[in-house]
Amino acid sequence: MSGLDPAELTAKLVRCASVTPINDGALEVLEEVLGTAGFDCTRVDRGGVCNLFARWGKKGNHKSFGFNGHTDVVPIGDEADWSVLPFGAEVKDGIMYGRGTTDMKSGVAAFVAAAVDFVGDTLADGSIVLAITGDEEGDAVDGTTALLDYMAENGERMDVCLVGEPTCPETMGDMIKIGRRGSMNAHFKVTGKQGHAAYPHRANNPLPAMMRLMDRLASHELDQGSDHFDPSTLAVVTVDTGNKATNVIPAQCRGAVNIRFNDHHSGDGLSDWLRSEADKIAAEFGVQVDVQIKISGESFITPPGALSDLISGAVEAETGVKPELSTTGGTSDARFVKAHCPVVEFGLVGQSMHQVDEHVRVEHIHQLKSIYARVLRDYFT
Amino acid sequence: MSGLDPAELTAKLVRCASVTPINDGALEVLEEVLGTAGFDCTRVDRGGVCNLFARWGKKGNHKSFGFNGHTDVVPIGDEADWSVLPFGAEVKDGIMYGRGTTDMKSGVAAFVAAAVDFVGDTLADGSIVLAITGDEEGDAVDGTTALLDYMAENGERMDVCLVGEPTCPETMGDMIKIGRRGSMNAHFKVTGKQGHAAYPHRANNPLPAMMRLMDRLASHELDQGSDHFDPSTLAVVTVDTGNKATNVIPAQCRGAVNIRFNDHHSGDGLSDWLRSEADKIAAEFGVQVDVQIKISGESFITPPGALSDLISGAVEAETGVKPELSTTGGTSDARFVKAHCPVVEFGLVGQSMHQVDEHVRVEHIHQLKSIYARVLRDYFT
Ligand SMILES: [Zn+2]
Ligand SMILES: [Zn+2]
Repeated sequence: MSGLDPAELTAKLVRCASVTPINDGALEVLEEVLGTAGFDCTRVDRGGVCNLFARWGKKGNHKSFGFNGHTDVVPIGDEADWSVLPFGAEVKDGIMYGRGTTDMKSGVAAFVAAAVDFVGDTLADGSIVLAITGDEEGDAVDGTTALLDYMAENGERMDVCLVGEPTCPETMGDMIKIGRRGSMNAHFKVTGKQGHAAYPHRANNPLPAMMRLMDRLASHELDQGSDHFDPSTLAVVTVDTGNKATNVIPAQCRGAVNIRFNDHHSGDGLSDWLRSEADKIAAEFGVQVDVQIKISGESFITPPGALSDLISGAVEAETGVKPELSTTGGTSDARFVKAHCPVVEFGLVGQSMHQVDEHVRVEHIHQLKSIYARVLRDYFT
Repeated sequence: MSGLDPAELTAKLVRCASVTPINDGALEVLEEVLGTAGFDCTRVDRGGVCNLFARWGKKGNHKSFGFNGHTDVVPIGDEADWSVLPFGAEVKDGIMYGRGTTDMKSGVAAFVAAAVDFVGDTLADGSIVLAITGDEEGDAVDGTTALLDYMAENGERMDVCLVGEPTCPETMGDMIKIGRRGSMNAHFKVTGKQGHAAYPHRANNPLPAMMRLMDRLASHELDQGSDHFDPSTLAVVTVDTGNKATNVIPAQCRGAVNIRFNDHHSGDGLSDWLRSEADKIAAEFGVQVDVQIKISGESFITPPGALSDLISGAVEAETGVKPELSTTGGTSDARFVKAHCPVVEFGLVGQSMHQVDEHVRVEHIHQLKSIYARVLRDYFT
């Protein structure tokens, strides 16, 4: 391997305990590397979140390729469950262990290393933009959004963007994400009237109303999928009452559902549907039904085309695997980037992400750098 | 009011936070009063439950009148919902507030006060027996049953027994209970497979199965009532999951129902029905459904006769109201006493029992004492 070693850079990042929204020196590691290579680096910190904007090439250049990623990680859970130091970046038998090794410090290290090596060559009239956030796993209010706001206000731009999240379900190279379903949560509170279980006519039990409501929501077919998307799904994730006394009818019950929706729906449309179902139940059972809705992101898609062809070609050339263009899985910051330019996501096999003993095969970090490097070469030549 | 003030005694009992199986000094309050009045008091504590047996008159006397009641109370729920201190026994506009003011510390106070005053007079050849438990609202395994076991083992007896539970639905004196429906609880555990909410096809959510099961059980008409009994009822009393993460489909969910059943049913027959409904759901949803059933008591009836005439006469003389002989309402310890001697139940208006801001009209406590006093006079003369 020539040039900047992406595995060493990954290890340096993993040793920063950057659990959202803590930075713990992670972005400084990148600033050092990128600054030395001639990138203009700007910290775009906002609302207690650290973010890094970096550009090589002239500001406002056309033919501008963007990378987006995050250095924050999810909590380690109970350290006793880990068989390694969670922030140790220990390598055993060619595998590096630690929180963030998969999601996604290796992804960031790979595109930083690819970019640094690439700008060592001549880059006639183009630029490379790196938008790296310290808040993707949390609220994401002051993360990639802050970077995009900064770019808009300062005349910075990307023509296309590649997000380096882990995207492969099984094998290196087997999936590129060209869109994501939307995601929303709805919290329901059904209120009736407490009473003795022996005198149900004097109480007003909220539970049968909640059961019927959740049954209806769970049984409803939202759609059968669309051109690029799987069917939308609704999962009842919890129903709770907290009543310990079997002779008491409780006054209240809470429940929550999570919806992953495709381009047949919008968050507002689904909110209207949920509220109308709640109203129907309230009328049928004579109970009060409160609904709190939080839309995490709308669905979006970058239709197959030049950008996905570019990434797909580089992946296949480096791995021999022809990636599937997919819209499965959870939300990511691509939902913010989408409003600015075409965006796709490609990265490692994500199986161990968010788990104990999160790990990455070291050779995959090098392979990922090679893929990103080929993407840059193919894009600019 | 002459003699022992039953309202003051009620207030003292309410100020003991005797949520089942905690005693918090409640029985000591009674021991003090009864001991001073010449009752032989014996604590019959068993299995972590406190119980009090008290007798005035010679052991084994015939013409022995028994009272049964409980000093334990149900939990207060969320204290923030109360407009008074739940264990304060505060009196406002002639109404005493607090958990247990209705169910049934006032009932216990009234019969204790009536008994204490009565034995101040001559009682030629009779005895008064008080069997007071600290576990009626809970499992009731070591409550009145322990007292009856103690009596059998020690040659103690009652010819008849009056249980002082609140029995009147609307007006003081309007109802005596001569029997009760049966009661049973069923606890359901539905087990599926945990997973990410974004990939529901990789998980097996137990919640929709639980919702459907509970909806079916709650919607089913058990019967339309029988000659002496109201229709049987089923109340879903709790459903709980405890899943805090909206992006996770949980592995398990628990729920419980309480059934009050008349003489159309038996505990075994209903158990068969519940298990078959659980099996159907398990098959329909591909989940595991475990059922744990506890039959608290079968339905029973004490046919109208001398005892109900005695109580009825005293009620009508003191209130001007002719009480209905009824079998409505929840289970009570009368189901245990029934095996030993004729038993009926009479007490206060029960509307606020088990609710927030439980309360009793203070004059009703005095009136209840007068009724119990007249019962004793009529029985022994
Ligand atoms: Zn990530
Ligand atoms: Zn009671």
